[in-house]
Amino acid sequence: MNSFGQSFRSTIFGESHGPSVGITFDGVPAGLPINEDDFVIDIERRKGGLQKGTTPRKEDDKPIFITGVFNNKTTGAPLTILFENKNTRSGDYEKQRAIPRPGHADFVAHEKYGGFEDFRGGGHFSGRLTVCLVAAGVVAKKLLPGITITAYITEVGGEKDVENGLQKAIDAKDSVGGIVECHVTGVPSGLGEPFFNSVESLISHAAFSIPAIKGIEFGAGFKAATMFGSDHNDAIDTASGHTVTNHAGGVVGGISNGNDIIFRVVVKPTSSTPKEQESWNWDTQTVEKFSVKGRHDLCIALRVPPVLEAITAMVIADLMQLAQKLPRIYNS
Amino acid sequence: MNSFGQSFRSTIFGESHGPSVGITFDGVPAGLPINEDDFVIDIERRKGGLQKGTTPRKEDDKPIFITGVFNNKTTGAPLTILFENKNTRSGDYEKQRAIPRPGHADFVAHEKYGGFEDFRGGGHFSGRLTVCLVAAGVVAKKLLPGITITAYITEVGGEKDVENGLQKAIDAKDSVGGIVECHVTGVPSGLGEPFFNSVESLISHAAFSIPAIKGIEFGAGFKAATMFGSDHNDAIDTASGHTVTNHAGGVVGGISNGNDIIFRVVVKPTSSTPKEQESWNWDTQTVEKFSVKGRHDLCIALRVPPVLEAITAMVIADLMQLAQKLPRIYNS
Amino acid sequence: MNSFGQSFRSTIFGESHGPSVGITFDGVPAGLPINEDDFVIDIERRKGGLQKGTTPRKEDDKPIFITGVFNNKTTGAPLTILFENKNTRSGDYEKQRAIPRPGHADFVAHEKYGGFEDFRGGGHFSGRLTVCLVAAGVVAKKLLPGITITAYITEVGGEKDVENGLQKAIDAKDSVGGIVECHVTGVPSGLGEPFFNSVESLISHAAFSIPAIKGIEFGAGFKAATMFGSDHNDAIDTASGHTVTNHAGGVVGGISNGNDIIFRVVVKPTSSTPKEQESWNWDTQTVEKFSVKGRHDLCIALRVPPVLEAITAMVIADLMQLAQKLPRIYNS
Amino acid sequence: MNSFGQSFRSTIFGESHGPSVGITFDGVPAGLPINEDDFVIDIERRKGGLQKGTTPRKEDDKPIFITGVFNNKTTGAPLTILFENKNTRSGDYEKQRAIPRPGHADFVAHEKYGGFEDFRGGGHFSGRLTVCLVAAGVVAKKLLPGITITAYITEVGGEKDVENGLQKAIDAKDSVGGIVECHVTGVPSGLGEPFFNSVESLISHAAFSIPAIKGIEFGAGFKAATMFGSDHNDAIDTASGHTVTNHAGGVVGGISNGNDIIFRVVVKPTSSTPKEQESWNWDTQTVEKFSVKGRHDLCIALRVPPVLEAITAMVIADLMQLAQKLPRIYNS
Repeated sequence: MNSFGQSFRSTIFGESHGPSVGITFDGVPAGLPINEDDFVIDIERRKGGLQKGTTPRKEDDKPIFITGVFNNKTTGAPLTILFENKNTRSGDYEKQRAIPRPGHADFVAHEKYGGFEDFRGGGHFSGRLTVCLVAAGVVAKKLLPGITITAYITEVGGEKDVENGLQKAIDAKDSVGGIVECHVTGVPSGLGEPFFNSVESLISHAAFSIPAIKGIEFGAGFKAATMFGSDHNDAIDTASGHTVTNHAGGVVGGISNGNDIIFRVVVKPTSSTPKEQESWNWDTQTVEKFSVKGRHDLCIALRVPPVLEAITAMVIADLMQLAQKLPRIYNS
Repeated sequence: MNSFGQSFRSTIFGESHGPSVGITFDGVPAGLPINEDDFVIDIERRKGGLQKGTTPRKEDDKPIFITGVFNNKTTGAPLTILFENKNTRSGDYEKQRAIPRPGHADFVAHEKYGGFEDFRGGGHFSGRLTVCLVAAGVVAKKLLPGITITAYITEVGGEKDVENGLQKAIDAKDSVGGIVECHVTGVPSGLGEPFFNSVESLISHAAFSIPAIKGIEFGAGFKAATMFGSDHNDAIDTASGHTVTNHAGGVVGGISNGNDIIFRVVVKPTSSTPKEQESWNWDTQTVEKFSVKGRHDLCIALRVPPVLEAITAMVIADLMQLAQKLPRIYNS
Repeated sequence: MNSFGQSFRSTIFGESHGPSVGITFDGVPAGLPINEDDFVIDIERRKGGLQKGTTPRKEDDKPIFITGVFNNKTTGAPLTILFENKNTRSGDYEKQRAIPRPGHADFVAHEKYGGFEDFRGGGHFSGRLTVCLVAAGVVAKKLLPGITITAYITEVGGEKDVENGLQKAIDAKDSVGGIVECHVTGVPSGLGEPFFNSVESLISHAAFSIPAIKGIEFGAGFKAATMFGSDHNDAIDTASGHTVTNHAGGVVGGISNGNDIIFRVVVKPTSSTPKEQESWNWDTQTVEKFSVKGRHDLCIALRVPPVLEAITAMVIADLMQLAQKLPRIYNS
Repeated sequence: MNSFGQSFRSTIFGESHGPSVGITFDGVPAGLPINEDDFVIDIERRKGGLQKGTTPRKEDDKPIFITGVFNNKTTGAPLTILFENKNTRSGDYEKQRAIPRPGHADFVAHEKYGGFEDFRGGGHFSGRLTVCLVAAGVVAKKLLPGITITAYITEVGGEKDVENGLQKAIDAKDSVGGIVECHVTGVPSGLGEPFFNSVESLISHAAFSIPAIKGIEFGAGFKAATMFGSDHNDAIDTASGHTVTNHAGGVVGGISNGNDIIFRVVVKPTSSTPKEQESWNWDTQTVEKFSVKGRHDLCIALRVPPVLEAITAMVIADLMQLAQKLPRIYNS
């Protein structure tokens, strides 16, 4: 099922080269002011063409409110937002159809959907759909005044200096991966459930919906494997639960503890590398060399921060509603 | 909600020091032979008292079939299994009540449940409940002939030689963490959904229900951040989708690709370290020194493998049922 | 949440006077041929303007496939269909805003959404959204070859002769209700769950989403209260479970028994009667007389049959998928 | 799936002749005082042996709190209650195994579970499980101070005078059905969702989980089919939405309108009539005459009121939690 969230629920739909991609929200409170401008910053952050290493493909990416908005406020009924796919060059992809590209969903889509998948531009698997996630983040963030969610690149191509990492890719005529960290402040303690719906379970569940993410760690993360318990434990030093250190990343026993939530994801190198590669050819039934055509990012990690913020906001908004910490109707 | 799974669904309940912990399954096919002996191996693997570094606490841990079994076969109706809590020494815990232990759920449980939580032995947050997860794994594995799920320790206390890692903890009079890897063979391609319910989303969702897990990575995982795309991409070399390398860990675009699924989790050091620590005292309203009493593992990671296998089996069984690859009725 | 179905899931959105209403489906198998023409018959049946007693409002009501269709076949990804709202006269409704109309959702919408609801034409509560249900029915029916679902009016205004019933309304310058029966053939035995998700639970759940339905009964229904057990019991007379009578309406113990599923719903008289009525006026804070303006049906029951068939098809398709009796991929 | 409720969720399990039946609740707030005595009245009302026409079978039916209760208050963690099955005479049933009893689930259970079902006493289909529903009702009612839920018999065997109706059954040596009405006061306006999760959808969904219920109607119900719109419409006469009449049964547009919720269900005659009947014999493969052995109610409708109240309380508690109208923690 392509829905996420129990109270603040998002349902996503669309393909890279169809008429539009879109998202429907359930559980958005009534009376929330909303308009196109709210979406500009995060959508621009996500867009290609803004910085070295991102694709030149451009879309207007204006949110089109189809349902759930009246007089510039949410109505409480389902909210649907569409984004048109204007700038599509399907021809690029049809030619490559016979060879399932390594690292792409071509092969699995064919296996899952029996060859009926819309293969143009990755179809439903396309990173294009992350514009819908970003939109979900915009809506969710509006529900969370007092909570800040900030994601940023910490590493590209193995380099802390991101420019260096990108240059490495350019020099090698290859693509590179990266690491993105997310820092959330202002989350109250007590969110999440001990079994199955921990804060970590929900954030990771949503994060792995972002194409190219292959790992996630909270707080000290994998480094915890090398620490002693007395070092990893975060000593509580106030009645409100503030801890001296934050190796737990703000989540203990699956529940938010009132400290900042901190986690990191790894983004694999863009699958569409400029390098020549090998893969199976369905037509010739042999392994063949080929090169990926089309416009692509050298480092998709650069576009991940607003998307990671978005899925985090979706999770936190959902948890806050479940904990009855958000109003059902806005009176502003 | 403390349920997991869409078709093969588990609902978990219980506290460390209540009469029993238990689990109810929905979606178990009818006619599956099942008896106590099926559970022995994995439950023994999970138990304390078997090896250096695990707690001496012993339980019989016999599965008690309350519902859903008739003539030693599943009936198709909900299957409920209880495990009695026999060996409980609540007194140990009541004394420590005033001080929420760092790294434990004491503080968050109090915040979430307003002081009404059963605090004895960690209550509902206790690792005790993982016996129910293990039971779920036993049932799920029985549904998956031809699929093997194997988890094993790869590192303890920063050492690849596990004995050395444990000795480090013993020498330091402290606890240590570790890394557990899980390897799944025989999974068909096509499982999982591109958005929100990817194989990685579901496995990570379930994995973070295991107490002490703080990170997860698939295939090359965090190392992918340092790789070029041409290196990370797994070239397909057969019609069935076999790949030469497996940096993707068997999941591309969120969907299983027919290769082995491989992932790793980090287990933080046991919170209950023998070392003296500091924390807030709710009674005195100051930071105080204290030592954790009671029986505890030096390295909880040692007990994680059968639990990690279990949650993996739960996810795979669920996905296999959703893909209609498992019978609804067994005729054996 | 405005979604329905566990495997074949529909998510509905829209308002009477917004740009469009729509529906997204999860769980539609890949490879199902689909085009506009498939929708014509049921959408025409649902439309006003076709027979005495239905409103003259006309819409093109062409299904617009936004996602999930490629080369006239479903792709397996979410399928989204929109219907534009072209023929809206919002002015009619704004004038009546101060008086919540008896029998309409005006009052409850205001209570639920705090005054932010889109009140034009009933907004999200409008019968307009049933065009989406009908679309769901078209898709669901295509999944169910060999199963027929037929709904028909059995009574209008208390008259078995429907023309007489309508004439009664015309003569009285009032609106009337009716009874619609639905008959389903070809359903295999074994669908449904004994607790909480019986066939009756699911059909009634969906049926009460159709505006104006106020009751439902299966088989002998309310008449069962006057029958002896020996009369009501349906004697089984073949190995396949055929019964001599069908007082159970094809469902026993919540499970389909392989006989025809038969049920009836009551449709209340159209709330928008031409008669003068009284209601509270929010502006003047007194009870006032008023007349409903705008175009309305004298007997909304006349438009219910295709909608009732649709929700039935949705339920049966969902149950058939859960029972693994439908393919996940079509090869035609 | 055998769970019900989105926020206040119940998961039911068990068979008539297994060791126990039980229920697990998610979403019960912490700090709610709870003890055995709370359950006595409703469980006694449900029990056989109390009045003419009910079965003499007796059970202690003491609720056994397995999880989620500590110091006589709920902990906020999952609450599990078991009821032991003490008084079982399985022998009665084994003899009848070859003949699927008309009106019972014997045939459909066999079809659904392939012959692996626990057939003793109806197994998982048994009315025995309604003791769990009653328990759910007890818990749910405790969450709803100020709301009263009252169900009562209005008709037995076609007679308003219930004693007459029962006498009719006794005289005819047959079983009879009945009608049960439920009246709910104190429900605030605004509960329910317009599409798919209306108050009527949820109540009917739950009601059809009660064995033997074959129809449900709200307010004027099926009589609405004979009324004019101007008669059926309930005029609003106060700012709070009070209506002069209540033909809608307290639900308009699927949403509670603040007036009493009123609905009626029909209970079919007990399937186990003392009369000789005919059915298919699986062994002989012919239609045969037979008589149902064992202890049974002449009129199961007599035992329905507390169960109907219970499922109503479950629904209202769930809706109240979703509307954030109930506390997550009790401080009493």
